[in-house]
Amino acid sequence: MVYVTRRETFNAAHRLFNPEWSEEKNFEVFGKCSNPNWHGHNYVLEVVVEGEINKQTGFVLDIRTLKDIIEKNVIEHVDHKNLNIETKFMKGKIPSTENLAIGIWNQLVDKIEGAKLHKVRLSETENNFFEYKGE
Amino acid sequence: MVYVTRRETFNAAHRLFNPEWSEEKNFEVFGKCSNPNWHGHNYVLEVVVEGEINKQTGFVLDIRTLKDIIEKNVIEHVDHKNLNIETKFMKGKIPSTENLAIGIWNQLVDKIEGAKLHKVRLSETENNFFEYKGE
Amino acid sequence: MVYVTRRETFNAAHRLFNPEWSEEKNFEVFGKCSNPNWHGHNYVLEVVVEGEINKQTGFVLDIRTLKDIIEKNVIEHVDHKNLNIETKFMKGKIPSTENLAIGIWNQLVDKIEGAKLHKVRLSETENNFFEYKGE
Amino acid sequence: MVYVTRRETFNAAHRLFNPEWSEEKNFEVFGKCSNPNWHGHNYVLEVVVEGEINKQTGFVLDIRTLKDIIEKNVIEHVDHKNLNIETKFMKGKIPSTENLAIGIWNQLVDKIEGAKLHKVRLSETENNFFEYKGE
Amino acid sequence: MVYVTRRETFNAAHRLFNPEWSEEKNFEVFGKCSNPNWHGHNYVLEVVVEGEINKQTGFVLDIRTLKDIIEKNVIEHVDHKNLNIETKFMKGKIPSTENLAIGIWNQLVDKIEGAKLHKVRLSETENNFFEYKGE
Amino acid sequence: MVYVTRRETFNAAHRLFNPEWSEEKNFEVFGKCSNPNWHGHNYVLEVVVEGEINKQTGFVLDIRTLKDIIEKNVIEHVDHKNLNIETKFMKGKIPSTENLAIGIWNQLVDKIEGAKLHKVRLSETENNFFEYKGE
Repeated sequence: MVYVTRRETFNAAHRLFNPEWSEEKNFEVFGKCSNPNWHGHNYVLEVVVEGEINKQTGFVLDIRTLKDIIEKNVIEHVDHKNLNIETKFMKGKIPSTENLAIGIWNQLVDKIEGAKLHKVRLSETENNFFEYKGE
Repeated sequence: MVYVTRRETFNAAHRLFNPEWSEEKNFEVFGKCSNPNWHGHNYVLEVVVEGEINKQTGFVLDIRTLKDIIEKNVIEHVDHKNLNIETKFMKGKIPSTENLAIGIWNQLVDKIEGAKLHKVRLSETENNFFEYKGE
Repeated sequence: MVYVTRRETFNAAHRLFNPEWSEEKNFEVFGKCSNPNWHGHNYVLEVVVEGEINKQTGFVLDIRTLKDIIEKNVIEHVDHKNLNIETKFMKGKIPSTENLAIGIWNQLVDKIEGAKLHKVRLSETENNFFEYKGE
Repeated sequence: MVYVTRRETFNAAHRLFNPEWSEEKNFEVFGKCSNPNWHGHNYVLEVVVEGEINKQTGFVLDIRTLKDIIEKNVIEHVDHKNLNIETKFMKGKIPSTENLAIGIWNQLVDKIEGAKLHKVRLSETENNFFEYKGE
Repeated sequence: MVYVTRRETFNAAHRLFNPEWSEEKNFEVFGKCSNPNWHGHNYVLEVVVEGEINKQTGFVLDIRTLKDIIEKNVIEHVDHKNLNIETKFMKGKIPSTENLAIGIWNQLVDKIEGAKLHKVRLSETENNFFEYKGE
Repeated sequence: MVYVTRRETFNAAHRLFNPEWSEEKNFEVFGKCSNPNWHGHNYVLEVVVEGEINKQTGFVLDIRTLKDIIEKNVIEHVDHKNLNIETKFMKGKIPSTENLAIGIWNQLVDKIEGAKLHKVRLSETENNFFEYKGE
């Protein structure tokens, strides 16, 4: 079993906001992260898959294929987007980085042929990282 | 003469948009960077000042003072903000990283006592950097 | 279950020294790391906690709270300190990075409400990393 | 149990090539990675070992010893080498980064006294990482 | 005047070799860098251009255009290539990183419309960097 | 003219302390940086030299020679040392990073054959950088 990681980056806007709460309550809980005029991040995404090596190629899977799967199922939905408004797979969820990591996991989990999704790691700044393993 | 650099980070939303143009023209020129629903970045800012060493302290200036000047004159105006709407010193300017670097220069140039502002370096992603030296 | 990581940095002086040994024996085992005049590091600390997502906030826990817990229970005890002399939680232990990682674990393990401490990762230079998971 | 990681780097040339296939088939599967004139990488290697702390030293093992073991058993065989032609432990294997990680594991697994090899992590570029844990 | 930097990466094989010298003399001067079986690097390239801001766009130049110019005139000629054999613009030159930086400068200097090439910065490893400004 | 940069790292202890002042005054000016029990850093040093390319080698100078010159004239004097007590070239100077950069410049300026020292860049943490060019 070998673990293969592909790193991608994207930029997006978001706002931490629970629509069941007032603006005041949102500001109290989320502080400046609930700014109604949005703010944004350069997210760094690491997708880790696991699998056995194909003897013919020496690969678990072709990492260009993995890159394409991430591009099509994640990057196109989030890059230069507003996560609260435009990202369908986040609809109805507060776009915390935790929820975004789970959303990305769900986008990818049944799309990777020849290997199994092992982990999604997402950072919103250089000091804050979030991981989800589907459990 | 010694050059002292302080590095700070902030997150903001923006949209590249020239109000003299139609939405179509903006999209044609700026692509997904003109997304009307905003997108955002983790900006990395480096402020470089130059000066002579104070014999008593061994410092050009106390770097905690430099940090405070940047905090007050820049970070408070841009962190978790919408650069198009909320950042007063960017009013009337397209919030490209180029213009933001110049805006930051102007915010800082006459605030630094005991040293001279030499350069503002700003990155919007790990691959794109912008520098301004006031000339 | 989501894993949340907060990264912090601190600077400290230390000396690898076993008081049961002679200076010669210490130098033989620890080399220049036992320099009696001290040396120091920029440590990079990553604290990983695990927990379930709160539906109201989208958070496992507020990362600003985690930051404050680390600040109060770790950073204040080690930053700009001498680990051999001043850091109470390292008293009687050789301040190797291994022991420091365990000391930090013990400082944090019962302080984090709403999540469980999963891992402490500590680097003393860009080439040497140490992890402890409480087992 | 503490996990200790040592990071080393090396440069090498390689070519993805399955000798049972024609040049055309190799190009079809591996693309420009099968360039017959070779290409190369700065590899970054992380070797993770696990063990208990020696009370006398505060170490799991002396990290300089770990460095020497990696130097002798891995770096000397791969640095500034052609992995297809010159690296004996890769003989008969396609030098994908997956296979190289396993080869490095096998070079190290019975050489580390006082600790147990836990993981080999190898990156070929800043976006592609590969891990092997011996299972 | 604003300075705009675009960062790109590529992988290549090379060998330091002066064809006017014997193999022995080459090995004496270049050491393992003259390995006849090649070795390689992940190069990191930074291209810095300078220009004035276009009031309509807020850009010095569209950084996607700069990216395309670098892609077409540099990356396509060096990525996954053998610099001694396959890179036409290095023909007849020893492929040291110094010469490669100058070669890249010459490839780019008259291709950038609307801005002036200011600097080429090239690193072959994380510890060795080379800059050329055309003078 | 090509600029060649070599990056090295070292660890040291220091204390910001002006012996003409009382402990109180030192604490007032330098804060926790004047801790009498020392603290320390992982310093990152970049040495930039400039010169013309030797046609025979393609080098400005052999970077292994530059590495050796830095090792002998700087690293041996500061790595795992106490900068206040043990580093002869800092004697009588407050070991601020500014003064250390100048001290390193003076150690190197007349030792580099075949190229001219251009700049010394020194960082004490990932957010604070200091440069000196001999003027």
